[in-house]
Amino acid sequence: MAQRFQTLGDIEAVFGAMPSPDLSALEAAEARDGTLTKPPGALGRLEQIAVWYCGWRGNGRTRVVAPQIIVFAGNHGVAAQGVSAFPPEVTAQMVANFIAGGAAVNQLARQFGARMDVHALNLDRATQDFTQAPAMNMHDFLAAFQAGWNAVDPVADLLVVGEMGIGNTTSASAIAHALWGGEAEDWIGRGTGVDAHGLQLKARVVEAGMRRHANVADQPLEVLRCLGGRELVAIAAAILRARHLSVPVILDGFICTVAAACLEAHSPGALDHCLAGHVSAEPGHELALARLDKTPLLSLGMRLGEGSGAALAVAIVQGALACHSGMATFAEAGVAGAG
Amino acid sequence: MAQRFQTLGDIEAVFGAMPSPDLSALEAAEARDGTLTKPPGALGRLEQIAVWYCGWRGNGRTRVVAPQIIVFAGNHGVAAQGVSAFPPEVTAQMVANFIAGGAAVNQLARQFGARMDVHALNLDRATQDFTQAPAMNMHDFLAAFQAGWNAVDPVADLLVVGEMGIGNTTSASAIAHALWGGEAEDWIGRGTGVDAHGLQLKARVVEAGMRRHANVADQPLEVLRCLGGRELVAIAAAILRARHLSVPVILDGFICTVAAACLEAHSPGALDHCLAGHVSAEPGHELALARLDKTPLLSLGMRLGEGSGAALAVAIVQGALACHSGMATFAEAGVAGAG
Repeated sequence: MAQRFQTLGDIEAVFGAMPSPDLSALEAAEARDGTLTKPPGALGRLEQIAVWYCGWRGNGRTRVVAPQIIVFAGNHGVAAQGVSAFPPEVTAQMVANFIAGGAAVNQLARQFGARMDVHALNLDRATQDFTQAPAMNMHDFLAAFQAGWNAVDPVADLLVVGEMGIGNTTSASAIAHALWGGEAEDWIGRGTGVDAHGLQLKARVVEAGMRRHANVADQPLEVLRCLGGRELVAIAAAILRARHLSVPVILDGFICTVAAACLEAHSPGALDHCLAGHVSAEPGHELALARLDKTPLLSLGMRLGEGSGAALAVAIVQGALACHSGMATFAEAGVAGAG
Repeated sequence: MAQRFQTLGDIEAVFGAMPSPDLSALEAAEARDGTLTKPPGALGRLEQIAVWYCGWRGNGRTRVVAPQIIVFAGNHGVAAQGVSAFPPEVTAQMVANFIAGGAAVNQLARQFGARMDVHALNLDRATQDFTQAPAMNMHDFLAAFQAGWNAVDPVADLLVVGEMGIGNTTSASAIAHALWGGEAEDWIGRGTGVDAHGLQLKARVVEAGMRRHANVADQPLEVLRCLGGRELVAIAAAILRARHLSVPVILDGFICTVAAACLEAHSPGALDHCLAGHVSAEPGHELALARLDKTPLLSLGMRLGEGSGAALAVAIVQGALACHSGMATFAEAGVAGAG
């Protein structure tokens, strides 16, 4: 039966019923790892990823065969303040580009055999400017949550969630500032490429948003509603849905990570089924990952969003599981062990 | 006509005729990069990799469709000193495992669509213990060089060279020490898993090798012959052959990188067609990459050899070129540029 989100209580209910990894699958995967034709630990993080993945999938020997990449797009009232190097109409133009298969994430999806979906969330109706009002009313928030929840393919075996939304690094910076404190400057960066003046403007906008919504700073879902955007809400919902489906998730950049962090702030452990795909060039991302105690798989100076960094990291997870599931054991191969 | 290596002069001759990247292809690739639907530079190192690759391939818009992984195996006289956690017969057993498709690198080759070749180099006749004599006489050295040169598929468009050889981290440490100085301890590590006693033994063996062959320390090819192993020589030769074929190379771990470094020490710029695929857990590797001014693509604590780290990095290079060649331009997609 389809889950319906009609009140905040419906969201609270799914937080209360999050599955854990399957310990027997995890132990079976660990035992198998110890028998494979390599010195113990010689595949480094690939071994940890494989065991972790097997635990979440409930299968001690498996592969990644059905990754899904979902890009959520939303428009932001705060963009009217000039916080982005690009005009707001680029959100819809890029959605058309995703649908036509022309964006970076499309190429990575094709390269690594991932299903790719695009969800444009009311692009004709931007969220409110969060310096003036909550970005979303409860109805809009729940609708975006529902869209994210519904977007996950139940047969996927690995999920990447990306975003597109002119102005959304500013929204993510405001959320990070609300969740983790510090100074507004700690959480802002050049986004798609603003100049020094743009950086100062972003800092002022983030501070103004924080002041406006200081009363909800200890309520992560309210932070997401008041300072977020529809695509950030949908990302959080999709990650929570993946948890309910026991589908491991690869987090993308700053915006995805901050949206996800609202789940962790609400319920510690809510991101245990998530890996950090990469650390982006957006300075707040490294800090955000540190707060979440996540070590990124890749560090290649990417800062595109769209799920592109996580899409590249799909290959690492595929490689880890290919080794774990496909390698011969010492006994099968007739190879002598360490002397 | 097939190149024959019958004297050291034949090797010197191929060093003298190394091709450079195609500047017009490189410029075309750079120009294309600037038109793609992303903020400038937002794909980080993927953009640099794509432009670099296009330059070496002489094509301003291309993909990676025919990667080749070659594993060379050799046995080391120095293994008799007990410098490895595994007995020498494991080299041949692992070669059988590579041929049967059961090793880690086989799984990665399959996952990313690479051709995989295995060359066992006179496993029944280990090199001399380099603390007593040159590891190879000139005849054996040239034969190993010829084997490496011949192993590269002329239609490959990306090359990974890996190794298997019980005792070969000790050989690589001795070469690194000869090329770059410092203390023996700087260049040794646990290899397949020796203990603290084993580490001390490796340091003593490396020092003894250095003393024995100090007279050739300024001649990189002689360093490779006196302290190397057949698989290290073949790796160097394959990398040089790839240069002559304008095939970009992804360097693997410590052993591969040190073998390659003999080329760079002989002719600065000889590794300009090579990327560092990863930095391994073997401590000398990070130092070696720094000496070569190469920044690794991956840092996942791998330390298996076999070409496994570079094989994983194949996916990164494939992803970079998939984006570069496949993305729509701003004009094609009708997306507005930065305001």
